[in-house]
Amino acid sequence: MPRKSSRRREGRSANAVNQLPWRSVENPIPPIALLSEDQLEAIHQTSLRILEELGIEFMSDEALSVFKAAGCDVDKASGSVRLDRAFVDEMLAKAPSQFTLTPRNPEHRLTIGGKHLCFASVSGPPNVSDLDSGRRAGNFADFKNLLKLAQSLNVVQYIGNQICATTDLSPETRHLDCSVAAATLTDRVFSSLSIGAERAVDTFQIMAMSRGETLEDLEKNPGILSVINVNSPRRFDGAMAEGLMALARHGQATVVTPFTLMGAMTAVSLPAALAQQNAEALAGIVLTQIVNPGAPVIYGAFTSNVDMKSGAPAFGTPEYAKATIASGQLIRRYGLPYRSSNPNASNCVDAQAAYESMMSIWSSVLGGANIVNHGAGWLEGGLTASFEKMILDAEMIQGMIEFLTPIKVDEAELGYEAIAGVGPGGHFFGEAHTLERYETAFYAPMLSDWRNFESWEEAGAEDATQRANKIWKQLLAEYEPPPLPEDRREAMEAYIARRREEIERRAA
Amino acid sequence: MPRKSSRRREGRSANAVNQLPWRSVENPIPPIALLSEDQLEAIHQTSLRILEELGIEFMSDEALSVFKAAGCDVDKASGSVRLDRAFVDEMLAKAPSQFTLTPRNPEHRLTIGGKHLCFASVSGPPNVSDLDSGRRAGNFADFKNLLKLAQSLNVVQYIGNQICATTDLSPETRHLDCSVAAATLTDRVFSSLSIGAERAVDTFQIMAMSRGETLEDLEKNPGILSVINVNSPRRFDGAMAEGLMALARHGQATVVTPFTLMGAMTAVSLPAALAQQNAEALAGIVLTQIVNPGAPVIYGAFTSNVDMKSGAPAFGTPEYAKATIASGQLIRRYGLPYRSSNPNASNCVDAQAAYESMMSIWSSVLGGANIVNHGAGWLEGGLTASFEKMILDAEMIQGMIEFLTPIKVDEAELGYEAIAGVGPGGHFFGEAHTLERYETAFYAPMLSDWRNFESWEEAGAEDATQRANKIWKQLLAEYEPPPLPEDRREAMEAYIARRREEIERRAA
Repeated sequence: MPRKSSRRREGRSANAVNQLPWRSVENPIPPIALLSEDQLEAIHQTSLRILEELGIEFMSDEALSVFKAAGCDVDKASGSVRLDRAFVDEMLAKAPSQFTLTPRNPEHRLTIGGKHLCFASVSGPPNVSDLDSGRRAGNFADFKNLLKLAQSLNVVQYIGNQICATTDLSPETRHLDCSVAAATLTDRVFSSLSIGAERAVDTFQIMAMSRGETLEDLEKNPGILSVINVNSPRRFDGAMAEGLMALARHGQATVVTPFTLMGAMTAVSLPAALAQQNAEALAGIVLTQIVNPGAPVIYGAFTSNVDMKSGAPAFGTPEYAKATIASGQLIRRYGLPYRSSNPNASNCVDAQAAYESMMSIWSSVLGGANIVNHGAGWLEGGLTASFEKMILDAEMIQGMIEFLTPIKVDEAELGYEAIAGVGPGGHFFGEAHTLERYETAFYAPMLSDWRNFESWEEAGAEDATQRANKIWKQLLAEYEPPPLPEDRREAMEAYIARRREEIERRAA
Repeated sequence: MPRKSSRRREGRSANAVNQLPWRSVENPIPPIALLSEDQLEAIHQTSLRILEELGIEFMSDEALSVFKAAGCDVDKASGSVRLDRAFVDEMLAKAPSQFTLTPRNPEHRLTIGGKHLCFASVSGPPNVSDLDSGRRAGNFADFKNLLKLAQSLNVVQYIGNQICATTDLSPETRHLDCSVAAATLTDRVFSSLSIGAERAVDTFQIMAMSRGETLEDLEKNPGILSVINVNSPRRFDGAMAEGLMALARHGQATVVTPFTLMGAMTAVSLPAALAQQNAEALAGIVLTQIVNPGAPVIYGAFTSNVDMKSGAPAFGTPEYAKATIASGQLIRRYGLPYRSSNPNASNCVDAQAAYESMMSIWSSVLGGANIVNHGAGWLEGGLTASFEKMILDAEMIQGMIEFLTPIKVDEAELGYEAIAGVGPGGHFFGEAHTLERYETAFYAPMLSDWRNFESWEEAGAEDATQRANKIWKQLLAEYEPPPLPEDRREAMEAYIARRREEIERRAA
């Protein structure tokens, strides 16, 4: 029935997807405290003891040399670095508490730190899923569609590293294709794949070219951030350590993130996990400041627990929410920007995905996080980037942003005259006070369906996940690439052609 | 295939549903503030102006006489009562800030006020739904099943008024059947249907008999709470006003709750809605204290917004969350216990139902609510009591309660030795510190499925709603009525037989 289908398509595109405008969000709610000052101090002291007595392993000769040159206690044989507390304090004092990241569209500049709050796309999943095609290994076509979708959503303010895997591209050169895709299909801050220095620098070059600038310009005015994961417990892999140093040297933002799953990569108690997380994060942050004092750096907290029945990681749990808020308390001690996440462990886009994500989003907000990685699209403990979940997350994030908008109280808003004008048992539908403001008075949802049951049933009784499926298709259908001067595009294409040839020649 | 089905049943009942124990919950998080002191004062002052200048209508001669006798400005013709601020202050000072409600099982006593937090079953929906039978008008069999389910869930700590409609019972006498069902199938605090004094007193009698006590005993040691809704704007219906006075006279807890949907029953701005809500709530609370100084009373806040496109009510919105937290600020001014709710507007048990409910639960917790009506089971803007939603809510509430459990920090929990015992890049699975505590270290969910994708898919790829369906069936299959001395049961049966006869004779 092509007629019907065509009519339906027209109907959809006539209805724009409801979105909040792009907005620099400040979180007005003072962060809450779950730990007393004494408890916080005990965790802090334990983490310093870990740094002083146990040390952190860096599997990079270069990193060990840097620590050594800075006067640290380095054991070259084991790769272990011990840091004393005075030195840690001295290095932490050099890190900025707030900075900006500027993508090719300066209107999409991010301020990171203070009360600022930004949400990212998901990053890193090997798989992709949607209701139509199910779950499959990620490929470059999915990668580009996820980028387009992220660009279409105003609340997805930066692009995580590798929005999904690209198993159809060569592992040696896919960072080139992926960076150019991010730089052309979006106009937002994006992340470098910082496995080693070389890949990171390629991405810096591409960001610089997308801005019509040089690498030197980018170094003065950063535009890239990148997660450096710790191989917890207490180990930085070589490629991660070298990626970290490349980010710091070139003045781009490092997000040092221990991945401390209680029961697996750390002990099964929250204070132990936080102490270990803190030691690991501080070690990486110290390295950024040795390499380049004042380099932008973000403390990433990602402590959750495994399901002790199956050993599977769990996210958005009560323990995860506690860890997220308690981490904020620790991080504010050091005056650093804070990265949290929006994870869940559900295998499909259902009520569990929603309530676990809400635990993650609320604890990020109450913990004073500045950037929320995996803000939109994360499913299945991070193993899948879901098109429908990206819409679900965008709705939940929009709701949160609207919640964080301060309440205005003045004579007009207090509306005494309006109240006086409606008698007991009456209604306010037709009142002037109502008519003047009803169109913009309340949050208009993207995904929530507030029709009555009968209308909803008659329209097909679709649940939120089915509606999300239609919304991402509409957004992709309506996607328009953000304008990019042709010379910048050509510069990027020429750069990656040359680099691809170099890398392939070297491998041959 | 009876073999397979029977095997599956055995498998299910062998696995007990994970539950937290019954627990008196205290919320350690200081309530957050969305309004400045000046803003709060402006709303408070506007509400006093409404009480002084506009007045509140009470459609009950008895209520008007009570106000008149207390010296208030009463206009008998319009039913309007004007209250001056000094008198309001004087009456509010008489209301207790905390009290207890004792059901027939004293272990299920509730403390209401302070930092205490309890969740109720849903109340009032005309419809019932579950995945098997869909949506239908509520009947007495559903009513009893929902009571059994509520009794089976440790986090559902009291029973709301009319857990669903009982359209197969006579409207004149169903309060008798429903009260006895609540008093026999549960051992929890339950609510009276307070449409008029007579129905309310019948329920008081039944609660007293279930405790093996008299009405006089119950008056000294209350066991009932009941919502008295305001017919906003600014009107108490006759039956509600008389129900309120009956509750107060007999020393049971009144939950005075304006239902202020912005755009319909109040103006479309939050400050106006809060000012009107406050005036209405205070008027009802004042009446309880005139009737019986010191009577237990709870300020109920239920301000949300309508969808301005359709006029349909919306819940769990950003505005709802703001109203819930701001209401807490107002209520703490008066030193009264605070009732909030856990509503959502979804038409099915999906991601929307989950994220809207999470907005409601989080804002209740952050707003310092003491009791959360409609805690478990509310669907479709309150038009449906859902069996699956009751499980979903119980999971979300359990997670919240676990989140509110304070973090313990001591040497053992800091686990320095455990951390020292695992080398860089190792794992903690087999460590003594892990083995000693892993079984109870983390929250064990009721509904969340944390298996990996392959195991989950092989087990049928059920989403959270489908799993909730199995859980409520298991709980109903395993339900055992809480023990009740036979003489108390007989007393209740005799009472309602006599009352039924009286009511039917009078009607004939």
